[in-house]
Amino acid sequence: MSAEATVLAYWAACEARDWERFGTLLADDMVYDLPQTRERIHGRAAYLRFNQEYPGDWHVSVVRAVGDGRRAATLITVTVDGTPTPATTFFDLDESGLIQAITDFWPEPYDPPAGREHLVQRY
Amino acid sequence: MSAEATVLAYWAACEARDWERFGTLLADDMVYDLPQTRERIHGRAAYLRFNQEYPGDWHVSVVRAVGDGRRAATLITVTVDGTPTPATTFFDLDESGLIQAITDFWPEPYDPPAGREHLVQRY
Repeated sequence: MSAEATVLAYWAACEARDWERFGTLLADDMVYDLPQTRERIHGRAAYLRFNQEYPGDWHVSVVRAVGDGRRAATLITVTVDGTPTPATTFFDLDESGLIQAITDFWPEPYDPPAGREHLVQRY
Repeated sequence: MSAEATVLAYWAACEARDWERFGTLLADDMVYDLPQTRERIHGRAAYLRFNQEYPGDWHVSVVRAVGDGRRAATLITVTVDGTPTPATTFFDLDESGLIQAITDFWPEPYDPPAGREHLVQRY
């Protein structure tokens, strides 16, 4: 399975709450990293529980995916209780194609800085 | 040039302020999209000027890059006036390998929500 197929399967299993399938894609000693909150989760068991316990009525749809060799990245839209928000995720796979490391970002809306109005359009 | 090589050249030219080289990597009608601020820049000329005018003593280093076919993604650290911040970027290339679309995210630090302390480590 290619790196792109692996991360597409990861998100599909996540959306389906198919935790058995989801778990088969993860290395035992995988690490999940959230640089924005400086949180880290070690190991498949804890990471499975983190996802299973994640609050809210959330849904995932993949906007973009790219993979090559043992690296992949996705842009997804996560809709939580009706509110869509983007998330960007970088994946490292181990030699057997299992997900070894996930680095996840949750970018929030912000007001654009002044001084570039002559170059940009708002939407 | 592969998609990964193209986006590595893009960041190298950016860091070097080599705007001539930077411009040769962009399609004339490229679009730069910032979903967080809902800003969009149309065209190479405006996007070049946006980068040339970007304030602060900024430096770029690539943390991860992945590309395949006409898609690529990068995770970079941008250090502005000494403060490092991550940015995640998704690229679409056109048929001739020029950068046609850039979707950029600037994730900011935030406090972790309560309820997952039993699964995470802070760093």
